[in-house]
Amino acid sequence: MSKEITPRQQDYSQWYNDLIIKGNLADYSAVRGCMVIKPHGFALWENMRDVLDRKFKETGHQNAYFPLFIPKSFFTREAEHVEGFAKECAVVTHYRLKNDPVTGNVVVDPEAKLEEELIVRPTSETIIWDTYKTWIQSYRDLPLLINQWANVVRWEMRTRLFLRTSEFLWQEGHTAHATAEEAVEETRRMLEVYADFAENYMAVPVIRGVKSPAERFAGAVDTYCIEALMQDGKALQAGTSHFLGQNFAKAFEVQFLNKANQLEYVWATSWGVSTRLIGALVMAHSDDEGLILPPRLAPVQVVIVPIYKGAEQKKIIDEKAGSLVKELRMAGISVIYDDDDSTRPGWKFAEYEKRGFPVRLVLGARDLEQHQVEVSRRDTREKTHYSLDNLTASIQQLLEDIQQQMFDKALAYREAHITPVDDFDSFQQVLDEKGGFVSAHWDGTEETENQIKALTKATIRCIPLDNPPEEGKCVLTGRPSRERVLFARAY
Amino acid sequence: MSKEITPRQQDYSQWYNDLIIKGNLADYSAVRGCMVIKPHGFALWENMRDVLDRKFKETGHQNAYFPLFIPKSFFTREAEHVEGFAKECAVVTHYRLKNDPVTGNVVVDPEAKLEEELIVRPTSETIIWDTYKTWIQSYRDLPLLINQWANVVRWEMRTRLFLRTSEFLWQEGHTAHATAEEAVEETRRMLEVYADFAENYMAVPVIRGVKSPAERFAGAVDTYCIEALMQDGKALQAGTSHFLGQNFAKAFEVQFLNKANQLEYVWATSWGVSTRLIGALVMAHSDDEGLILPPRLAPVQVVIVPIYKGAEQKKIIDEKAGSLVKELRMAGISVIYDDDDSTRPGWKFAEYEKRGFPVRLVLGARDLEQHQVEVSRRDTREKTHYSLDNLTASIQQLLEDIQQQMFDKALAYREAHITPVDDFDSFQQVLDEKGGFVSAHWDGTEETENQIKALTKATIRCIPLDNPPEEGKCVLTGRPSRERVLFARAY
Repeated sequence: MSKEITPRQQDYSQWYNDLIIKGNLADYSAVRGCMVIKPHGFALWENMRDVLDRKFKETGHQNAYFPLFIPKSFFTREAEHVEGFAKECAVVTHYRLKNDPVTGNVVVDPEAKLEEELIVRPTSETIIWDTYKTWIQSYRDLPLLINQWANVVRWEMRTRLFLRTSEFLWQEGHTAHATAEEAVEETRRMLEVYADFAENYMAVPVIRGVKSPAERFAGAVDTYCIEALMQDGKALQAGTSHFLGQNFAKAFEVQFLNKANQLEYVWATSWGVSTRLIGALVMAHSDDEGLILPPRLAPVQVVIVPIYKGAEQKKIIDEKAGSLVKELRMAGISVIYDDDDSTRPGWKFAEYEKRGFPVRLVLGARDLEQHQVEVSRRDTREKTHYSLDNLTASIQQLLEDIQQQMFDKALAYREAHITPVDDFDSFQQVLDEKGGFVSAHWDGTEETENQIKALTKATIRCIPLDNPPEEGKCVLTGRPSRERVLFARAY
Repeated sequence: MSKEITPRQQDYSQWYNDLIIKGNLADYSAVRGCMVIKPHGFALWENMRDVLDRKFKETGHQNAYFPLFIPKSFFTREAEHVEGFAKECAVVTHYRLKNDPVTGNVVVDPEAKLEEELIVRPTSETIIWDTYKTWIQSYRDLPLLINQWANVVRWEMRTRLFLRTSEFLWQEGHTAHATAEEAVEETRRMLEVYADFAENYMAVPVIRGVKSPAERFAGAVDTYCIEALMQDGKALQAGTSHFLGQNFAKAFEVQFLNKANQLEYVWATSWGVSTRLIGALVMAHSDDEGLILPPRLAPVQVVIVPIYKGAEQKKIIDEKAGSLVKELRMAGISVIYDDDDSTRPGWKFAEYEKRGFPVRLVLGARDLEQHQVEVSRRDTREKTHYSLDNLTASIQQLLEDIQQQMFDKALAYREAHITPVDDFDSFQQVLDEKGGFVSAHWDGTEETENQIKALTKATIRCIPLDNPPEEGKCVLTGRPSRERVLFARAY
């Protein structure tokens, strides 16, 4: 057990924090609520971004970039949006500093006050729909399929690295359509892109569902989501895709001439995932030794460590390592050879385990004589020996196995943690003792939802898309219900 | 001549603006000084970013991400830096809005005032060196080679799309070294990376040089730069690389234990290029019909337009176009087939010329019968016919020729516009009548530099790195000088 990392059993929250810091993903910064994403963490984000960006482009989207600042008045245009978004945010009021003539200190120049305050974007629907007004005139301009990679700011009182920071990185898709059907189809398509990414790249199984009205995005008609389960039994919303109806088109007067030459309001969607996914990835898979990263997203998949005595052995191993590195890279496997002689192999092993490198190869003189290499996989920490014959193919297979087994393990845990309950005592007991999702009947009212939240801290995570209809009674009020929904405590 | 674009001769500045807007690169936004980068412009930026990012990684750099906000007090730590940077910037003073109880309007909550104002980063030296303090302890932690892709804000009173906007996108490299020599070497290495990118990708020749003290980055010991020449004879600084000495290490107390176990301050560099490069690219090459983009950076290199009568011809052309697209893509050439039947070929030709697609192929029934295709290159607007045999290889060659000829043309223009002068009358005359760089002797004082600027609006663009020593007399004061420097009016 790593001495630097608090065990999960002892303090899950501290374990998470230790992992992020000691695993070299991120650091706190001098600015409250803002983090520094370190090179290892940023390389992970780049890999996630590259896969998602490719998927967005394959589904016909283009990237663009909109301003960081949004005039305050824009938030008041969509009535619900202002309630949800214009509150806890960074407000720019001045555009100049000056030296105080008396003290010499740098102070805000009171003369340089903005006529209208600018909000640092917490999300960009308003500024983007203000722009779409000039881009959309006719049905020929539709669909408009745009994505933006950007930083956003939501002032948070309680922050946690990656999970909830005042500034975070994300992508936000904003599309415009001629019909409601097309917009709903787009909303569902992008939800599926997210689900596919979570399951096949992050190795995190997710439940595709729709939010209850209380948990909807401010300004949306429907919010679809993917919900993941963490190892402590808490749920985490990993991505959302919103059908916005004509709300923003009406707020920003975006109309188009349809084929019948009539003016209609445009239909909209928006969808996003953020650096929060890194938090999900970490909490879904890692152990008390450090990070466990899925091979398809790990910044480096294989590390090779030499063990030798004297320059002669080192030379033979260097040569072998050099050709191995070349071979693995040719096969598209990312690999580093760590022959730094200022640290010992044992220290390196622990360090790479903490950082979650999926596979470690140890090259020793005796192994080489026997035409083999020691192979350790990070996820199970199993050690074995591979022949040097066809080593690249063996490693490739191993990486695929790790990816699959990480998913299978997370899925088994998730499946074991969806518990149907039919009375409120069991509801509370499952939440307290077992955790995970509780599948229960709900009478469909916001009042009941709020009451359950106040009593248990659990919220409705989603109504699964593949939910079977089932007559039943609300777990709290006993009123009639037609389907079960998933409750959980959540990040 | 495109009716939508003002000719260069008539109004160069309006021509530039028309190109950016009609060429679909960017739009003004509702926020003063901030632009919207449209998909075509953003795809161009992505291509630039990808090439640069690869070059940074090949030279050992890693990406990371630092906070958008910088505490006001950080700017006061490095004395010169505060003078240069902490003035015209966006200041966050509050973190909450609320509904006014009386009017119901959304207003800034006076209770939510920050104790210390936050500055939206105009550049990140301060917040990064505050972080490096915790990352650097020993010579083993050096060199630290970090780059960040980010948005920055410098409040500008007079803005121009891409050239000078309040918010812009850029990369900023920030490196830390054990010795001054290593840091200077890094500064020069990154200057060469920029120069190579400008010349071999943007097809824009640049002069590598060092800035005079007056034009130095605030807080730098030396600022290196690459200077390009635009078609109107004005210079444009396309990238800078700064040797920061120990200034920021001292300001943020970043020391390391050297091999002799002694504490030393760390040596620093920083270097950056921004979306301004798009402005340079546009102004260096384009003509009165629209954009001319170099093939290595163009979002799409080849557009295929069909010309047909009736469905039967269309079907034959579609088939041929389909296999052509496949073939070209296999060869790594980006291509689109525009068979939209709601616009006429002539409209498409003008549109793709405006957007700067390097090559247009026209597929007509008669040409196909003759086993050929019409090929137009955007840079020279020459039209010719290519055989369908080996078409991919011919196109590949053509794209390379275009890239090279764009560079050659820009280089010939630049070479013809470096004018040595030895008296101040000629100095002014060349600036007024010919433009370009004026190579003249200067006495080395800031006073003279300022006087020349006041008299002519020309500044010292740089002292070229390969400058030959030459005894002479200052063009203004007649005082002795040991080398010529390059003056120009500049963007």
